Amino acid sequence: MAQQNAFYAQSGGVTAVINASACGVVEACRESDRIGKLYAGHNGIIGALTEDLIDVSQESDEAIAALRHTPGGAFGSCRYKLKDIESHRAQYERLIEVFKAHDIGYFFYNGGGDSADTCLKVSQLSEKLGYPLTAIHVPKTVDNDLPITDNSPGFGSVAKYIATSTREAALDIASMCATSTKVFVLEVMGRHAGWIAAAGALAGNGEGEPPHLIVFPEVPFDRAAVMARVETSVKQYGYCVIVVSEGARYEDGTFLADAGNTDAFGHRQLGGVAPTLAGMIKQDLGYKYHWAVADYLQRAARHLASRTDVEQAYAVGRKAVELALEGQNAKMPAIKRISDDPYEWRIDAAPLAEVANQEKFMPREYIRDDGFGITDACRRYLSPLIQGEDFPPFDNGLPRMAELKLVKVERKLPQFTL
Amino acid sequence: MAQQNAFYAQSGGVTAVINASACGVVEACRESDRIGKLYAGHNGIIGALTEDLIDVSQESDEAIAALRHTPGGAFGSCRYKLKDIESHRAQYERLIEVFKAHDIGYFFYNGGGDSADTCLKVSQLSEKLGYPLTAIHVPKTVDNDLPITDNSPGFGSVAKYIATSTREAALDIASMCATSTKVFVLEVMGRHAGWIAAAGALAGNGEGEPPHLIVFPEVPFDRAAVMARVETSVKQYGYCVIVVSEGARYEDGTFLADAGNTDAFGHRQLGGVAPTLAGMIKQDLGYKYHWAVADYLQRAARHLASRTDVEQAYAVGRKAVELALEGQNAKMPAIKRISDDPYEWRIDAAPLAEVANQEKFMPREYIRDDGFGITDACRRYLSPLIQGEDFPPFDNGLPRMAELKLVKVERKLPQFTL
Repeated sequence: MAQQNAFYAQSGGVTAVINASACGVVEACRESDRIGKLYAGHNGIIGALTEDLIDVSQESDEAIAALRHTPGGAFGSCRYKLKDIESHRAQYERLIEVFKAHDIGYFFYNGGGDSADTCLKVSQLSEKLGYPLTAIHVPKTVDNDLPITDNSPGFGSVAKYIATSTREAALDIASMCATSTKVFVLEVMGRHAGWIAAAGALAGNGEGEPPHLIVFPEVPFDRAAVMARVETSVKQYGYCVIVVSEGARYEDGTFLADAGNTDAFGHRQLGGVAPTLAGMIKQDLGYKYHWAVADYLQRAARHLASRTDVEQAYAVGRKAVELALEGQNAKMPAIKRISDDPYEWRIDAAPLAEVANQEKFMPREYIRDDGFGITDACRRYLSPLIQGEDFPPFDNGLPRMAELKLVKVERKLPQFTL
Repeated sequence: MAQQNAFYAQSGGVTAVINASACGVVEACRESDRIGKLYAGHNGIIGALTEDLIDVSQESDEAIAALRHTPGGAFGSCRYKLKDIESHRAQYERLIEVFKAHDIGYFFYNGGGDSADTCLKVSQLSEKLGYPLTAIHVPKTVDNDLPITDNSPGFGSVAKYIATSTREAALDIASMCATSTKVFVLEVMGRHAGWIAAAGALAGNGEGEPPHLIVFPEVPFDRAAVMARVETSVKQYGYCVIVVSEGARYEDGTFLADAGNTDAFGHRQLGGVAPTLAGMIKQDLGYKYHWAVADYLQRAARHLASRTDVEQAYAVGRKAVELALEGQNAKMPAIKRISDDPYEWRIDAAPLAEVANQEKFMPREYIRDDGFGITDACRRYLSPLIQGEDFPPFDNGLPRMAELKLVKVERKLPQFTL
């Protein structure tokens, strides 16, 4: 059978395990005699548009294997969403030129909800513009908000990091609370969905154990109720550990902390809810506080990745190649949970049209009635996702990272301006 | 030889490995036939003053061994400094009453510079008030600012955490910088000394590799110079990773970020320099930024402890007991570096009078001439301290913590008000 080349790119906010998916894609491509060379887009779809391609065949098997334990996006990611084909035909014609010039028949795009939309549009090249291409979306997002898949690769590792950090920091506050800090606030990611905040609850085994309070974006922020809860916790346990989502908001939708910037997709850039909440607590209750904002540390913390997450990230990468070789255009490998305990899963193929631009919110039954913690159902859902460790190799006291050569493919086309 | 009981307590901000020192003290006490029971003060010296004692003999060997991998202060810490004997005689007489009532002849106090001062005052009970007591200070501080000892137990693990987190997060920014975040600011602890900030530099191998900029408390903050450096980095590498000390300050001593609170020792509570600096960068250069504040996470991160640090923390605990049994009052086990590479060290005994209330600052020759990075001498000093991993056992995806019974000793004395 005739060989065709493949294209792979990373998109959106990176994760601790997106490179494990890259590793899965590359290794599966190398095993197939129907795929010639694999080209990686430098900085996501922008690499395709600008013909800025990396020749992955130049990388050794060892370097590719090391991607499995390297955080960040090894080929560069982007926040860039394709407009629709009808109104921005030139962009799509450019994509076809680049794909034609490099004989690309397979397209793998590794990202979240916005990227799924881009991948869906690329998958329509065949039908709408007559260029034969098989496009598969490889799921990734720390926000865990992709639909259909039981969970999103990238989330389990953040969940493990936040749960571990919360458990560790809680011991710190517990030690100090008699004469010093009484309240600790940890701000976590999750713009619209409280999945990461919920994972903080895994640090304890329920009420009485820290964290004593989770502030979800799904539960309108009620200052008086939150303060009452903080006060009760300090009086009962001597201290209060709070995990707050960056997306925490008031009833009217206003975010507690809004940095005032917007990204390329028009999303508001958030940050700073921890100091905001800590300030309220100081003002209303007078307690001494500390606060932390995990920000990128949480999604880059490959040193504390969930083994389950790494395995799934790798598996969806491999599965993407399998689906493509089966000719399944416009699909996304989706994790299907078979059972909670023992945890069993498999990978199905989800239609991309049902994935793109959909956000999966926390089900209401995952949030406790008082709005400040998770239910047993949520714990059953989350717990398997943080199981197992997969420590990277360390050299000289620090985690070893993949070292890629990132050799660029010679350009064949005129320049293109985005 | 007649047995006497011993007292151990934890003081000041806790670390990832202070419990490893506790483990060393307890295990050494258990091995000595001259030490009867070991009592731990609940919440540091306050436990001694209020006769709030924990009977450590009730804990199993397994629970004590588990202290070695448990962050926080297992017996409770405190921020409480004894006043001098002359003006606050009643407090010291109370201590003697408690020690007499429980036949305590050995006093082990595990803390930083302020706690060394408390321990020094207690060590004077014998000489000034005629109560025979051997007092040993067990060094601990993430700030690495204790004098005489080559490094302070607790620091190596924070250093490893900050260097690792910086290296991981730098890959994240590097992936995103083409279309999104250009600047990442990580705020680290270190009120007066830039040791922790310096450790961030270990993430890279020098100029060109992130972090591109360290903001030390020792180098007066010059906004124009910092902005120029940020701009150069973004232009040259596409992004800029900054590690900033919470103690960053202007020429006149004003902190960049001052939360306005003071602790029991009169220290200003700092925090929020990362968003302050990020805001300046946005304002002056317009770059999109992210920032993180590690706060307690950095000193609680036992999951990423330095094996060197754990071994030293344990060793100073054991050595404290040895020194006490030799009758060496008013001493502190101090780490003496024998060689950098291969790293070799031993433990000497330092006179407590030379330790208390002294802060060890970064030598100027450890900071690069431009003030924005570390020198080779600093790297040679720091590098051994982060060597080796000592991952805790994990259960169900989370680090296992020591579970102590914390059985209180029956009170024999009337209540005492602090």
